Amino acid sequence: MFAPVYLDHNASTPPDPEVLEAMLPYLSGQFGNASSRHEYGRAARWAIDEARSQVAAAVGAHASEVVFASGGSEANNLLIKGAAACLKPGLLAVSAIEHPCVIKPAEQLCKRGWTLEKLAVDANGRVDINNFAMIMTRKPKIVSVMLANNETGVLQDLEPLAEHARMAGAWFHTDAVQAVGKLAVDFRRLNAAGVHALTLSAHKIGGPKGAAALVLDKRVELEPLIAGGGQERGLRSGTENVAAIVGFGVACTLAAERQAKLAKPLLEMRRRLEAGLIALGATLFGQAAERLPNTVYFSFPELDGETLVGHLDRAGYAVASGAACSSANPEPSHVLRAMGVDPELARGAVRISLGAGNRKEHVAGFLETLRATVAGLRRLTAMTA
Amino acid sequence: MFAPVYLDHNASTPPDPEVLEAMLPYLSGQFGNASSRHEYGRAARWAIDEARSQVAAAVGAHASEVVFASGGSEANNLLIKGAAACLKPGLLAVSAIEHPCVIKPAEQLCKRGWTLEKLAVDANGRVDINNFAMIMTRKPKIVSVMLANNETGVLQDLEPLAEHARMAGAWFHTDAVQAVGKLAVDFRRLNAAGVHALTLSAHKIGGPKGAAALVLDKRVELEPLIAGGGQERGLRSGTENVAAIVGFGVACTLAAERQAKLAKPLLEMRRRLEAGLIALGATLFGQAAERLPNTVYFSFPELDGETLVGHLDRAGYAVASGAACSSANPEPSHVLRAMGVDPELARGAVRISLGAGNRKEHVAGFLETLRATVAGLRRLTAMTA
Ligand SMILES: Cc1ncc(COP(=O)(O)O)c(C=O)c1O
Ligand SMILES: Cc1ncc(COP(=O)(O)O)c(C=O)c1O
Repeated sequence: MFAPVYLDHNASTPPDPEVLEAMLPYLSGQFGNASSRHEYGRAARWAIDEARSQVAAAVGAHASEVVFASGGSEANNLLIKGAAACLKPGLLAVSAIEHPCVIKPAEQLCKRGWTLEKLAVDANGRVDINNFAMIMTRKPKIVSVMLANNETGVLQDLEPLAEHARMAGAWFHTDAVQAVGKLAVDFRRLNAAGVHALTLSAHKIGGPKGAAALVLDKRVELEPLIAGGGQERGLRSGTENVAAIVGFGVACTLAAERQAKLAKPLLEMRRRLEAGLIALGATLFGQAAERLPNTVYFSFPELDGETLVGHLDRAGYAVASGAACSSANPEPSHVLRAMGVDPELARGAVRISLGAGNRKEHVAGFLETLRATVAGLRRLTAMTA
Repeated sequence: MFAPVYLDHNASTPPDPEVLEAMLPYLSGQFGNASSRHEYGRAARWAIDEARSQVAAAVGAHASEVVFASGGSEANNLLIKGAAACLKPGLLAVSAIEHPCVIKPAEQLCKRGWTLEKLAVDANGRVDINNFAMIMTRKPKIVSVMLANNETGVLQDLEPLAEHARMAGAWFHTDAVQAVGKLAVDFRRLNAAGVHALTLSAHKIGGPKGAAALVLDKRVELEPLIAGGGQERGLRSGTENVAAIVGFGVACTLAAERQAKLAKPLLEMRRRLEAGLIALGATLFGQAAERLPNTVYFSFPELDGETLVGHLDRAGYAVASGAACSSANPEPSHVLRAMGVDPELARGAVRISLGAGNRKEHVAGFLETLRATVAGLRRLTAMTA
């Protein structure tokens, strides 16, 4: 089988072999429904409890603060719509660079009497603190600002933002789907600063698809998105996906253990990539901001991102154009638009996101392939111009 | 390891080895995000497309009518709340014996201006057609009646009901989570009779937890419960759980192939169980109604169901008391209440649900163990009385 070099870890990650191994019993002999009051049910319940502790430990939370969901998108929708359903409609503020699974539910609330304010970012993709503080004076009830952006990798300094939001009396949520496993994330510290909820997703950190968590300060009242049997303290009904939750727990433990060790080699590879890209004439996005150690987002002004990604794919390198998580949306990235990037340049956007399995050789090989591909495309562009 | 005889297939089923085998590549090398435009992404997309066709084929639907979700509870919530969000509030009618994941979202809608009518059932758990017809004259906008009940196994004759609902202009949904794999289910025929949506769930039919489908007539407009990247035609965002969806597809194919073959041996085992139970003095629920071939629901008037289930568990038989899918809810079953069963008798309710792995010997062994357990508990009851 043809196995291209995988450089798209912000889209999804290979599950760790230890993760799969931990899951297997729950995909075969240990198939009980965790609500069942017999041996099979209890085994499932114990496994979920254990995973809940593992997830909590990895992000400095208490197990009782972890609400399992099927994915980051569900967890974000649960927080935004679930919190809104328990409040009188008012102002809601989310950053302009949030993932669609934060922006879209926020937009849905506008049909229910809410007003949505999108928080501006600067040219490097950081939330503009002055604009933020001004909007806080209008007393929003819910605020959501992501910890790390999936496209640019740009980090937000949440504590001063949460401080302002707290004075406004808002619930403050952060989508940490891209941060966990790549940075040390401490919910206890964030919570002390005024962050009330945090989302993480298993398949972004070496776990399986099908599990995620909303870590939730218990003072936040939520209406469940999925109501029914009352699982997850009534906040998320439905038979628990035991195997995925077990895999998520193990992935969290591994990610927390490895994060510090991985940061340096990832950053070195990122720097190599950046130097190589600049040498080839690329523009890097968010370059002046603190960013994830694994993410590089760039554009060649005269080349189309989709086309470049297609050529790289055929040449054996799997990377992303624009926002890889949003399907069927070939418009230029809303993140780059919010950063004021020229639409032509935005159309060239390509993202490389490294992971634990990548080596220096991958970076060198990639840069070499990119050089040849870009040269070829430039010749084509020159010919058809 | 102690492996009790599993007689609780309505709670969850052991995944078929072929299902697990089909899933494994997507839990290891084929880990791509189906929205990614490279080799890994395309492999995931193909796998999902294939599974969509398999699920559709198993229930006589078109692949384009299948919307994947994380579980039956999510699919039911999506239909109920998603359809309601696209309509002006009005009357909503669901049977009194629906699973909580239909009843609870329906109740949530009452906070949004909807009126909920619970459709009455007779003493055998069948929807009362006269009452139903009367309620339809009040023009409900959404109607939900399950095909087979998870506790009693009682089947509803949906076609006459859907006919009435159609005249009222309602969207008609059926929760077929317990029917698929145990009966032939044909969405095309149901759709012709006026059924617009049908729910099925992988882990109830030999598939994994984490995948389910809402089969949906495209005329039904739905607001997504999980909004974001726009997956599943915009009706259910979030990175698809590829492995679970692949397992679901295979499970559907196997279930459809085996259903006809399994019906007879299951029914024979059920009849043996029923005869044995009656001989021991049990009351059977829904006895005069057509029921699933695998489900027996009974009570010993003087014994507590939870206690009996606990004793049977320790004696090596995994069965359920009351509604096994609803966690942390020790009240007597709302299904039995709706059937007018005496609360004392309802508290004794125990469910046996057979599956493909069960044999006549399991039934004989179970009846023998039950006889001894019941005798012991009766002696205890007599002593403490
Ligand atoms: C920042 C961010 N938030 C949320 C999500 C959604 O998570 P999931 O794919 O698990 O639904 C993603 C990726 O898809 C993401 O990158
Ligand atoms: C009739 C019925 N509907 C819906 C569900 C919910 O399905 P899931 O557990 O996949 O969320 C169940 C079982 O839990 C059920 O028995």
